Amino acid sequence: MAKNITPKENNFSQWYLDVIRAAEMADYAPVRGCMVVRPTGYAIWEHIQSVFDRAFKETGHVNAYFPLLIPNSFLEKEAKHVEGFAPECAVVTHAGGAELEEPYVVRPTSETVIGHMYSQWVHSWRDLPILINQWCSVMRWEKRPRLFLRTSEFLWQEGHTAHATREEAVEETMKMLEVYKNIMQNELALPVLYGEKSMNERFPGADNTYSCEAMMGDKRALQAGTSHFLGQNFAKAFEIDFQDKDGGTSYAWTTSWGVSTRLIGAIIMTHADNDGMVIPPRIAPVKAAIIPLSTNEAKLSDELEPMASDTARKLNAMLGAPETVVDKRYHERPADRFFHHLQRGVPIRIEIGERELAEGVVTLVRRDTAAKEKVSLDALTERARDVLADMQTSLYEKARAFRDSNTHDVSNMEEMKELFGKEGRGGFARAYFSGSDEDEGEIKYVTGGATIRCLPLDDDSTGKCVYTGKEGARRAIFAKAY
Amino acid sequence: MAKNITPKENNFSQWYLDVIRAAEMADYAPVRGCMVVRPTGYAIWEHIQSVFDRAFKETGHVNAYFPLLIPNSFLEKEAKHVEGFAPECAVVTHAGGAELEEPYVVRPTSETVIGHMYSQWVHSWRDLPILINQWCSVMRWEKRPRLFLRTSEFLWQEGHTAHATREEAVEETMKMLEVYKNIMQNELALPVLYGEKSMNERFPGADNTYSCEAMMGDKRALQAGTSHFLGQNFAKAFEIDFQDKDGGTSYAWTTSWGVSTRLIGAIIMTHADNDGMVIPPRIAPVKAAIIPLSTNEAKLSDELEPMASDTARKLNAMLGAPETVVDKRYHERPADRFFHHLQRGVPIRIEIGERELAEGVVTLVRRDTAAKEKVSLDALTERARDVLADMQTSLYEKARAFRDSNTHDVSNMEEMKELFGKEGRGGFARAYFSGSDEDEGEIKYVTGGATIRCLPLDDDSTGKCVYTGKEGARRAIFAKAY
Repeated sequence: MAKNITPKENNFSQWYLDVIRAAEMADYAPVRGCMVVRPTGYAIWEHIQSVFDRAFKETGHVNAYFPLLIPNSFLEKEAKHVEGFAPECAVVTHAGGAELEEPYVVRPTSETVIGHMYSQWVHSWRDLPILINQWCSVMRWEKRPRLFLRTSEFLWQEGHTAHATREEAVEETMKMLEVYKNIMQNELALPVLYGEKSMNERFPGADNTYSCEAMMGDKRALQAGTSHFLGQNFAKAFEIDFQDKDGGTSYAWTTSWGVSTRLIGAIIMTHADNDGMVIPPRIAPVKAAIIPLSTNEAKLSDELEPMASDTARKLNAMLGAPETVVDKRYHERPADRFFHHLQRGVPIRIEIGERELAEGVVTLVRRDTAAKEKVSLDALTERARDVLADMQTSLYEKARAFRDSNTHDVSNMEEMKELFGKEGRGGFARAYFSGSDEDEGEIKYVTGGATIRCLPLDDDSTGKCVYTGKEGARRAIFAKAY
Repeated sequence: MAKNITPKENNFSQWYLDVIRAAEMADYAPVRGCMVVRPTGYAIWEHIQSVFDRAFKETGHVNAYFPLLIPNSFLEKEAKHVEGFAPECAVVTHAGGAELEEPYVVRPTSETVIGHMYSQWVHSWRDLPILINQWCSVMRWEKRPRLFLRTSEFLWQEGHTAHATREEAVEETMKMLEVYKNIMQNELALPVLYGEKSMNERFPGADNTYSCEAMMGDKRALQAGTSHFLGQNFAKAFEIDFQDKDGGTSYAWTTSWGVSTRLIGAIIMTHADNDGMVIPPRIAPVKAAIIPLSTNEAKLSDELEPMASDTARKLNAMLGAPETVVDKRYHERPADRFFHHLQRGVPIRIEIGERELAEGVVTLVRRDTAAKEKVSLDALTERARDVLADMQTSLYEKARAFRDSNTHDVSNMEEMKELFGKEGRGGFARAYFSGSDEDEGEIKYVTGGATIRCLPLDDDSTGKCVYTGKEGARRAIFAKAY
């Protein structure tokens, strides 16, 4: 067990921070609530970005860039939006040595300024749909920051689309939720529930919000991505109107959807262990660390290093990208060299030593299970591919089993209070609910924080409301959340 | 000639804006001096990014992300730096509903906050070098904004490295200048001079600044990228010190280097023409537009579209990426469909009509020369590859010939004044110079704006100073610049 990491069981929050520090993924910045994403963490973000970006493009979206600053008056054009975001905004009051006539806020999200631009670009139905995504940073002042999960500045993508009809906008909202779900499950190995948010948890200004919800290692829920159907709220506020096919004038229907660096927090809290980071192979920036081992310098340079380079070349060819490293830090002890990669979550380690060299075999060690095996050089590429694939599946299955075993059917408020009480098991409560916003608030109060995470879309069963006792209520998942 | 574009010869500035508007590359944002990079422009930026990012990684750099906001006190730690940047900063004074104790500036560049972090990461010589790059936006309040060239916010990359020795830092500074030069010439088809900046034009806080300088279509110079040797200035201001091999304590040596969305402005002002945008094929997001042409709907759907798709597939396979479009906007007139892609600078257009279909040939039109040719379907992929390669070379050669024919040897101030006077030919003045900063200022004054763009590194000849008449002066290029 790593000495520099507090065991998960003792203190989950400290364990989380220790894993991030040990893997050098991020640091707090010298700006209140902000973070520095260090190279190890940023490389994971780049891999996450490329997977999402490809999926966005395959579904017809293009990227663009809108300004960092938003005039305060823009925020005020949508009543619920300003109510939700203004208290969290950072405000620029001076620029170029003078006080500004109107203050600008640093974007907390870009519906308003993008809405303004769309109103200038959209004239006829032929200009629709607009399917744009933006990769950028946004700022929401946080009172209780936590690396990756809640920071005053974070990196994200925000998709913003405008459509001629309500149906198309709804279809887009659901399509992007599906894209999110598939990537989270298949690439990030995060099992997620997906569904509709309750009114209390809707995006400020949306008609409806959908989300993907994952269970973290401490059984709390994390909202991993959201997709919003904005109706005509922003189109009316910013006058995105157009001449429709019949010659009349209509307002557009818009959507927005986003995922952020928070996903890195989700990966840590789902897959990492008491030794450090564990990265699902499909998004691991380094998939294999190759480690020549010898105290004989000539042996290293003449035989082991060429073999390591050759192995790296073959693995890179199999992976289709330069995603291996050869570790030449011979001044470190072998155990420290192993630990370096292990703590950073590199999926497999390949040790090439003198004895192995003589026998034509190397040692392959898998990160999540610590399973060690001898593999002949001839079979290495194929074996590495299998191990990576198996690790990907196995991380997902393990996380799903954990979530399922910590999901409990709850049919009345006594069970609900017991589950989320001090002695309770916690996790996800699967219940039926048809109460009001106030009823949901009351459940939150009596459980010490459990809220509806979502009303799952793949469960259309109905039953007796856990709060009101009325029949015909929809399925709802309650949990304490990050 | 395009009706929506002012001829270059009549009004270069208006032509530039018209090209950007016609190609839908960018718009002014509703925030003073800021721009919106629209999808057509942003796709070019993504291609530029990927070329630079690959080169940075191949030279051992990794990406990271540092905070958008910088405490005001950080800026003040380096005297020249604060003097240079403070007047241009946007200042956040309020956040989360309260006034901040210390104001933050939106980063104009990140030497200070990165220096602060490096001081925490560097302890021993083994922690060096640090080779980090960041892709982000920065903000420098502009009084006279111009799309892509000077905007209050722009997108860029900033490399920041720290080294154990002066030699290594100097080597890094020159290596990145070389990387810039090679990409600008080979990928962006921009012939550039590269050299040292005069003291007047140095980055605030640098010991030395190097730059790549290109000549625009109006014969003015544009600084296309810079690489700074920062000496120990920032290391001392932020206490980036380390235990060296001998057990002593030393300050690190640092560098920084950057290119920005300004490069898109450079491409426009070098290659675009009176019909609109022209994009060098190697960085063109769409390399070929394939246009089925028929008024017969059945013919289109049954024969022409399948052939267009098949052609797109083959071209994408040759290009190694999905970089073609099939244009199905049949409600537009053929001429308008052609013009759409032409104005966006798509390198080649492939017309597939009924007559062509019968003969097994298509029409291929090249953007820069408007040359039209019939190509048999069998030979199309190969021919497209050749045309793209030829266009890339030809754009570069044309720009180089233009620059060379507008570069003039100038041996005394009379010639200098004549060259840059109202009736003068303008362009680049190749002279020798060994005067003082004040002398350079005087030349700027009497020529109405010509400054030293750089002291070219590939020219070590010496001669008589154009200003003082002293022998042994270094080669210098003077020009009026953007």
